[in-house]
Amino acid sequence: MGRAAARALKEYPDLECAGIFSRRGAAVCCEGADVYPLSEIKNFKSCIDVLLLTMSSSDLRAFSPYLSQHFNIVEGFDMHENVREHFLSVDRSSKRNKKTALICAGWDPGLFSLIRLIDSAFNPFGRCFTFWGEGVSQGHSSVIRSVNGVQDAIEYTIPDENAVNAVKEGNFAGLDKFNMHKRRCFVCLKEGADRESIAEKIKNTEIYFKGYDTEVNFTSCEEIERRKQHMAHKGAVISNYPNAADGALMEFYLNMESNPDFTARILLSLARAVHIMKKSGDFGAKTIFDIKPKWLIMGEDTLKFL
Amino acid sequence: MGRAAARALKEYPDLECAGIFSRRGAAVCCEGADVYPLSEIKNFKSCIDVLLLTMSSSDLRAFSPYLSQHFNIVEGFDMHENVREHFLSVDRSSKRNKKTALICAGWDPGLFSLIRLIDSAFNPFGRCFTFWGEGVSQGHSSVIRSVNGVQDAIEYTIPDENAVNAVKEGNFAGLDKFNMHKRRCFVCLKEGADRESIAEKIKNTEIYFKGYDTEVNFTSCEEIERRKQHMAHKGAVISNYPNAADGALMEFYLNMESNPDFTARILLSLARAVHIMKKSGDFGAKTIFDIKPKWLIMGEDTLKFL
Repeated sequence: MGRAAARALKEYPDLECAGIFSRRGAAVCCEGADVYPLSEIKNFKSCIDVLLLTMSSSDLRAFSPYLSQHFNIVEGFDMHENVREHFLSVDRSSKRNKKTALICAGWDPGLFSLIRLIDSAFNPFGRCFTFWGEGVSQGHSSVIRSVNGVQDAIEYTIPDENAVNAVKEGNFAGLDKFNMHKRRCFVCLKEGADRESIAEKIKNTEIYFKGYDTEVNFTSCEEIERRKQHMAHKGAVISNYPNAADGALMEFYLNMESNPDFTARILLSLARAVHIMKKSGDFGAKTIFDIKPKWLIMGEDTLKFL
Repeated sequence: MGRAAARALKEYPDLECAGIFSRRGAAVCCEGADVYPLSEIKNFKSCIDVLLLTMSSSDLRAFSPYLSQHFNIVEGFDMHENVREHFLSVDRSSKRNKKTALICAGWDPGLFSLIRLIDSAFNPFGRCFTFWGEGVSQGHSSVIRSVNGVQDAIEYTIPDENAVNAVKEGNFAGLDKFNMHKRRCFVCLKEGADRESIAEKIKNTEIYFKGYDTEVNFTSCEEIERRKQHMAHKGAVISNYPNAADGALMEFYLNMESNPDFTARILLSLARAVHIMKKSGDFGAKTIFDIKPKWLIMGEDTLKFL
């Protein structure tokens, strides 16, 4: 995603890439931007308006509170169960140092969160459902990779068509997290590993797979490598308030050629907003719900979108 | 829409109806809210936090600048070609009097404007198209009613399915305002009026019908009256950036049981935002692009939408 952001930056006349900072230092190669070791980042305090953190959530837990002491940041923390704790921790460090820190940015959380809030504001007595996929879930893929005997793996989350139609028709009864999505796994085994027992182990992994309609396919590591190159992803937020005289059905569908590239565009757009908030003295941890929409775009003329 | 707002207000614990003000005075009947003549409204300055103006745009041209001297307002001005002038006029009157005035609120302009801006922010090199209908266009209906010989009429704006699919597939070539929508009219004639010449007159009305695929059906006034009872409306905002490695397709579909009832919900939600802005000293004319999303909902807990 860092590379994607550097690529996208070149197309925005109002934004500029000050550099890429990596824990692997200059070993990371990124066309069109200078790469520095992360350890040197504090020397760049004067030339970075906003820092995009494109790390995993487990890294962000420590890095966002730390780096938001020194920089205005945009990051994509996505561990829903730990959001409040993370918010407070980033809020403390950024406020104390007069920095602005936008957390949980991306397409979900982020764009989809915004759509969910809008749906809930305008359709307040309706119900709002989110579907992810068909697309690769990094979290589920790495859970499979951690199973003993697995060499490599990739998981696709697939919305159940019947569930999507049920929401659109307002038949919410019986919908639960287990029947809204299917899980399709492709697994490359280590030599000598037992297919049957590994398939059982995957299907019974609590939280991630147990209770879901999970399909486990065994294949070569080359096939998985090939699949990893396809970064497309999709999702939908659907709000319905059926059988009401003032009810509405709102459907938002997103279909990305490349998950990291589109997510990078969202982070860059939010970086504009962070810069504006910081300049106006609005410090601390923020979410997309704190952002005036007009801050997201290039230029000042918003009336044309009316 | 005023009645719809009064009905909806009863369901919100954080909002209350101070009264309904009508140019027809107490002749207007509205279940569950007191009705007063509009001429008395200035006596209510101390008990109205936000005033919803549910008039036509031609009335809002005068009433919004006038009433925003005395009240914080939310209104739905929708004459696109006059937006800038209207904005400036409301901005002057409201700022001078330390009032906050949200203009151009509703589903379009309003909700759809917000989706267009979000699409343009996150898919900045894509193209964004709006489709309206199938649903009744009040503007087109009244243009037909003004034709000599017409007793009553109703017009349905219908998106062209081929155009919708072309946008989704990224085939923008050849799309123009004339082939994106069809227009279906139902007309009740005055006695002795000539069908053929009236159909021709309608189809050749500049701006509204000329160049469009327009269908004119003649029917009874009872049939038109019956059709007027159905307030359902639909629309779509579709943004696409095809053939790009970082491209995305975003589709937003709205399907309302009742256009005035759903629009009223949007105005009420924006009234919350206006109240917050006013309290913080943020005066003048505003649009939905000035609204932090968190101001739209009941309650303070927005993290749950992440």
